[in-house]
Amino acid sequence: MPVLASTPDPPYYAVIFTSLRDEEAGDGYDATAARMIELAHGQPGFLGVETARDGLGITVSYWTDEAAIAAWRTDAEHLLAQELGRSRWYRSYAVRVARVERAYDFGPNP
Amino acid sequence: MPVLASTPDPPYYAVIFTSLRDEEAGDGYDATAARMIELAHGQPGFLGVETARDGLGITVSYWTDEAAIAAWRTDAEHLLAQELGRSRWYRSYAVRVARVERAYDFGPNP
Repeated sequence: MPVLASTPDPPYYAVIFTSLRDEEAGDGYDATAARMIELAHGQPGFLGVETARDGLGITVSYWTDEAAIAAWRTDAEHLLAQELGRSRWYRSYAVRVARVERAYDFGPNP
Repeated sequence: MPVLASTPDPPYYAVIFTSLRDEEAGDGYDATAARMIELAHGQPGFLGVETARDGLGITVSYWTDEAAIAAWRTDAEHLLAQELGRSRWYRSYAVRVARVERAYDFGPNP
């Protein structure tokens, strides 16, 4: 069951990754996407991640600071996945790095 | 066909809205969600929006500044939709207001 990311009080950082891809069964995308989520969880400064795709894909990951984002961006296995993303999986994508300044929520989040 | 939001050079603002809902066919959610997207497009300071749902829902809207976000948050029709969201549609949600500081992209975005 999906859950919302549980993040501390602001400020912290969000990386908003939005993408369009040409779906091709068996192209290895799903396994690599899952592996990147798993790998991100082990990175210093990682706070959480939320992801959804229906046509457009949106993945928002949360980080303590910009240094943590820079380290994740240059992780060797992640760099390889980024290269495969450009050469094989994504038609187009956008990455936005943003400083979360305010946050509020509603309802239970187990 | 979905497209990525076309936004200006940073800085600008993002509202990251993530939600979990109990799906119930015919509860009016889809019509109201579509109407809110349409209504947002007419707001001063609106720059774009991206949305996806599969289990978890993620909608990221982009705005010129915090004043535009505050005005949208208190729009009368939007306030009513927010109330319905809490009473009827959402199990839980989170809203994060973030200042986009850096952005880059890849590939064509018609």
